[in-house]
Amino acid sequence: MAGIEYEIVEEIGVLSTNARGWSKELNRISWNGREPKFDIRDWSEDHSKMGKGVTLTDEEAQKLKELL
Amino acid sequence: MAGIEYEIVEEIGVLSTNARGWSKELNRISWNGREPKFDIRDWSEDHSKMGKGVTLTDEEAQKLKELL
Repeated sequence: MAGIEYEIVEEIGVLSTNARGWSKELNRISWNGREPKFDIRDWSEDHSKMGKGVTLTDEEAQKLKELL
Repeated sequence: MAGIEYEIVEEIGVLSTNARGWSKELNRISWNGREPKFDIRDWSEDHSKMGKGVTLTDEEAQKLKELL
């Protein structure tokens, strides 16, 4: 993820953890200094490595909650 | 996505649509003939192209709903 800066502003919760210690997490993350967004993504145990994921605006997260 | 087969089993809803016509959607998708999972992903207007996304088990989706 060269060139991408991020800050985990809030760790909201863990959805699951797999056998390798990676967790699928819901966080609020600021990407490249922008306004924080909801973020669903796999992380290594110490947050040093990230997997693929999706970011959601507040509106998208609200809609998702209604649909789930 | 060569070699990956999928079937959109249920179109649950659209979270947002961008200016290019792509939509962020919540669907139930069967990947490679396996049991369907929840899937949050960007799709082109006619579902012919997919973007990055995350799949969620029923348990992960339930937990996500509680956290949002």
